[in-house]
Amino acid sequence: SKRQTITLLPGDGIGPEVISVARNVLNLAASIEGIEFKYQEVPVGGAALDLTGVPLPEETLLAAKQSDAVLLGAIGGYKWDKNEKHLKPETGLLKLREGLKVFANLRPATVLPQLVDASTLKREVAEGVDLMVVRELTGGIYFGKPRGFGTNENGEEIGFNTEVYAAYEIDRIARVAFETARKRKGKLCSVDKANVLEASMFWRKRIMAIALEYPDVELSHMYVDNAAMQLVRDPKQFDTIVTNNIFGDILSDEASMITGSIGMLPSASLGESGPGLFEPIHGSAPDIAGQDKANPLATILSAAMLLKYGLGEENAAKRIEAAVLDTLNKGFRTGDIYSAGTKLVGCKEMGEEVLKSV
Amino acid sequence: SKRQTITLLPGDGIGPEVISVARNVLNLAASIEGIEFKYQEVPVGGAALDLTGVPLPEETLLAAKQSDAVLLGAIGGYKWDKNEKHLKPETGLLKLREGLKVFANLRPATVLPQLVDASTLKREVAEGVDLMVVRELTGGIYFGKPRGFGTNENGEEIGFNTEVYAAYEIDRIARVAFETARKRKGKLCSVDKANVLEASMFWRKRIMAIALEYPDVELSHMYVDNAAMQLVRDPKQFDTIVTNNIFGDILSDEASMITGSIGMLPSASLGESGPGLFEPIHGSAPDIAGQDKANPLATILSAAMLLKYGLGEENAAKRIEAAVLDTLNKGFRTGDIYSAGTKLVGCKEMGEEVLKSV
Ligand SMILES: CC(C)[C@H](C(=O)O)[C@@H](O)C(=O)O
Ligand SMILES: CC(C)[C@H](C(=O)O)[C@@H](O)C(=O)O
Repeated sequence: SKRQTITLLPGDGIGPEVISVARNVLNLAASIEGIEFKYQEVPVGGAALDLTGVPLPEETLLAAKQSDAVLLGAIGGYKWDKNEKHLKPETGLLKLREGLKVFANLRPATVLPQLVDASTLKREVAEGVDLMVVRELTGGIYFGKPRGFGTNENGEEIGFNTEVYAAYEIDRIARVAFETARKRKGKLCSVDKANVLEASMFWRKRIMAIALEYPDVELSHMYVDNAAMQLVRDPKQFDTIVTNNIFGDILSDEASMITGSIGMLPSASLGESGPGLFEPIHGSAPDIAGQDKANPLATILSAAMLLKYGLGEENAAKRIEAAVLDTLNKGFRTGDIYSAGTKLVGCKEMGEEVLKSV
Repeated sequence: SKRQTITLLPGDGIGPEVISVARNVLNLAASIEGIEFKYQEVPVGGAALDLTGVPLPEETLLAAKQSDAVLLGAIGGYKWDKNEKHLKPETGLLKLREGLKVFANLRPATVLPQLVDASTLKREVAEGVDLMVVRELTGGIYFGKPRGFGTNENGEEIGFNTEVYAAYEIDRIARVAFETARKRKGKLCSVDKANVLEASMFWRKRIMAIALEYPDVELSHMYVDNAAMQLVRDPKQFDTIVTNNIFGDILSDEASMITGSIGMLPSASLGESGPGLFEPIHGSAPDIAGQDKANPLATILSAAMLLKYGLGEENAAKRIEAAVLDTLNKGFRTGDIYSAGTKLVGCKEMGEEVLKSV
């Protein structure tokens, strides 16, 4: 069997620490299942800015494109916060998503029984939450043109962006969402602002058209303001949510915080073909970087998503997921999920414990 | 003293019930303070559609403009959900906001000690939450042009909207926000997506420019996805939030649900001059309309905001606020905020109880 190549993008802040731990776990789980990987590590974000002057060097994108899957740590930090747009670490990430054409971003938000008390929501509200946000990732207001700065007809200075979706962009994310819902509890909620925005009316129209191909999936629609409320009121009502880039950014972060343990949450970004991009949803946490305090589980679970969604290696993926649960069951916790009676460990030790259970 | 005119817009669903109760409370509180009002009731939203074929008849806008303050119930309902955009009840509301030029939307989210258990958040997280969202209401993607449907350069069907802010629009909402923060705890958090959107970069730049006029207010900036998380993680960190129209729509609804009692929350929409628009933040709740089950307190508290922010009648406003607290302290609750050991009442009876305490 040909050796597949994994591109590692440690990035900034705690990125390198969590990537190094996750790589070991990925490697062990894969090799037990008879899969062998080659790894290449390339810079992105602030790390790339410092090394090369740009947040996504051409070599990095090329390496990523030519590999079988990409595992990213985190990007960004105070240091580059005031950079101009094309020199922001975030711009590197957006260009990477665009370059890899990974239009479908899957963001699970699951409350594990072991961590239900980490949620700020009452136990009975948080317990059993298990939802998936399918966020459109390469369109909408993030990429729409025209955009920029200028003056309006009265000579007033303005800043502007364009929210725009073409039929094919909605159709393809809709299909990913319906397929995802089908493999889950068969319920899909499409979130938009169709009572105000034409882009949302068009979104809803296309979602309804694609729904005809999935009569077995129960489709509903919700306005984004209501969705932001319902996630707080009763997150268990949701199975799969599909929404545009900006609403998905907001709602997936809200949903993740509802679990109370964003240090635990992975994500997958997938295209039609080509390598997927897998990353924890947490940020680069510059305040704890280099202190061996970061929770590596989100990146380890991103490696599991890489195996499952990126390479179709379900067994190796399950091995990692089971090892994470096992490690939690044994009581090991990093600082962000620590509670009285559990064992506080650092990033590396958490990784070693997971390795033991793989 | 000249008699001021209040325009009442009952609207749809539970709107007429809550307006009728709130009017009585408003009237009593005002008259005790020696203020006399004239009232005019005109249709808006679905009610106007059914009567006149449009969601905001010219007569309604004119009446509102010529009055001293406008009290709105709620608009919308399943019946009109599939209407084309210009025939949606929501469009009536947007045109009303535009016509009255009420660019500043103040949305308090307060957890009252009497109702802390209504929140889905843990007691220690919800207790003491007292924040104000200042939402820009007549600009941004809600009103930006170009907007509509069309085809792109590849002949693909598209739907699109424009997020655009001019300097003067940001400057004036910034001033309202800084003034508001100054009267509260002196902390203002501006929410944007300046790591991605030019409209947000421009927003941040103008906010920072206006901040120079308010050295006594502590300004911070937060990305919208992070704000959606922080509202769940620790809502007490916020005092005053200022943000654009669409982010304000989402975050103010999220914040309101965090209180657990959206049936309690009022809002004020203010312009440079001219009458303000005051309305509960809850919707028209068609499922309970006409059953005397609605919670009138949000509308009653909106009447208090009308007195305070619309007419500068602080004493009458305080009278209403105190009466509401008094009524809650006596244990009266509508169904939405009912808990064991309290007294369940309908919309009308709740109104009568508040009247007794005014
Ligand atoms: C860093 C930023 C550009 C990014 C986004 O907005 O997409 C992040 O918030 C995310 O959700 O992955
Ligand atoms: C009804 C709708 C147009 C409106 C809005 O989006 O502004 C509502 O959600 C609100 O927040 O007042």
